[in-house]
Amino acid sequence: MANNTLTLELKNEVEDLLNAYVQCIDDDDLERWPDFFTDECLYQVIPRENHEMGLPTAVMWCDSRGMLEDRITALRHANVYQVQWYRHIISNPVIKTDDGDTFQVQSNYAVFKTCNDGDSTVYNVGRYVDEIVRDKGVLKFKKRSAIYDTHRITTLMVIPI
Amino acid sequence: MANNTLTLELKNEVEDLLNAYVQCIDDDDLERWPDFFTDECLYQVIPRENHEMGLPTAVMWCDSRGMLEDRITALRHANVYQVQWYRHIISNPVIKTDDGDTFQVQSNYAVFKTCNDGDSTVYNVGRYVDEIVRDKGVLKFKKRSAIYDTHRITTLMVIPI
Amino acid sequence: MANNTLTLELKNEVEDLLNAYVQCIDDDDLERWPDFFTDECLYQVIPRENHEMGLPTAVMWCDSRGMLEDRITALRHANVYQVQWYRHIISNPVIKTDDGDTFQVQSNYAVFKTCNDGDSTVYNVGRYVDEIVRDKGVLKFKKRSAIYDTHRITTLMVIPI
Repeated sequence: MANNTLTLELKNEVEDLLNAYVQCIDDDDLERWPDFFTDECLYQVIPRENHEMGLPTAVMWCDSRGMLEDRITALRHANVYQVQWYRHIISNPVIKTDDGDTFQVQSNYAVFKTCNDGDSTVYNVGRYVDEIVRDKGVLKFKKRSAIYDTHRITTLMVIPI
Repeated sequence: MANNTLTLELKNEVEDLLNAYVQCIDDDDLERWPDFFTDECLYQVIPRENHEMGLPTAVMWCDSRGMLEDRITALRHANVYQVQWYRHIISNPVIKTDDGDTFQVQSNYAVFKTCNDGDSTVYNVGRYVDEIVRDKGVLKFKKRSAIYDTHRITTLMVIPI
Repeated sequence: MANNTLTLELKNEVEDLLNAYVQCIDDDDLERWPDFFTDECLYQVIPRENHEMGLPTAVMWCDSRGMLEDRITALRHANVYQVQWYRHIISNPVIKTDDGDTFQVQSNYAVFKTCNDGDSTVYNVGRYVDEIVRDKGVLKFKKRSAIYDTHRITTLMVIPI
């Protein structure tokens, strides 16, 4: 299950990206969130069933860095929503690469949400399927799909997964 | 807490096995599940209290690869159960080895289940206690015990943990 | 996002500490828990809102190894509380060091609690913010803050996070 081109240093570099991405969101440092993506990119949050049936419906869908920035601007200035915090736990990254510059990565995630009432609940669980590339020396997401199991989402999804 | 015989390469190899195992189950690729075990093996899912008291009762118990295969055949063809998905999050592997060929591994897990109603709930949490061996060059589980805290299991456990 | 002074060996050493800490608590081996800290230390469990507003209120607060030991003595002999088990899942450690001897570490955690009724529920989620130092060759926590999102805690917190 190991692949020879994936050195420990490269694996570590990919994991650092996954970890920094989560810290950015959970620390509510969302203005930095688009920096994790290449200029041309695809970010989508889609239900597992639609993904498996090839249906395109997504809860969030952005295909450029500009759209990612717009989403954060909307979140900060236009969307009206309950104060809430995310806490991501990610696990089990399986990483494949042929050349050390492009990576196919799958990992599991669970996002807990805490709202005004103070309870932390399981908000959304699923897996990330990523295509990660080296962009001016730094690893970034070219494609990041959050494919979620939880097909009943109790409130509008405002903050990205 | 480090042990000298556990190189980073070996640790990585063990983690790859733990991660691939989870991906196999969560992707519903269960026909491949028995491949993670040696021909003679022990797989069991047991409550923590029974484990601590030395009682043998297990919710699942298989002591050969053939029994693992039977279980998947039953799941696919005989068991009647609600459509459901698992999502594993694992954490904190503590790995010990004397020789780089046999490993004693403990890790924590949380399994979330999503059924027809679309909610993802905490289904089962506990720890894996594993004996992993090298079998024709590849790491496999010789023993895998899922020892769970959650002693009220809401529905029949069909899919392995 | 990588920093050059953090080698893979050092990263591994920090992760081993984080993992062993969790295993100690979840295995109910609490007498060993103070060993993870330096003699002069700070351990606190504080709500996120108080932390962000600079308010000092903490659910647990110990500023010496003696206080950590007292807490375990109280838990074993004085506190009256329902039998309960913790299960920690931790994730996404982001580690910084300048010299390989002092580390600034942030990681996410989710703690599940299982009580008499057998259900495992999300008890407390948040992040650890740590200062880890080398003490006679071994990494220990000089400061460990568990900053939690979950501001409604359903029962008295007896076991450390």
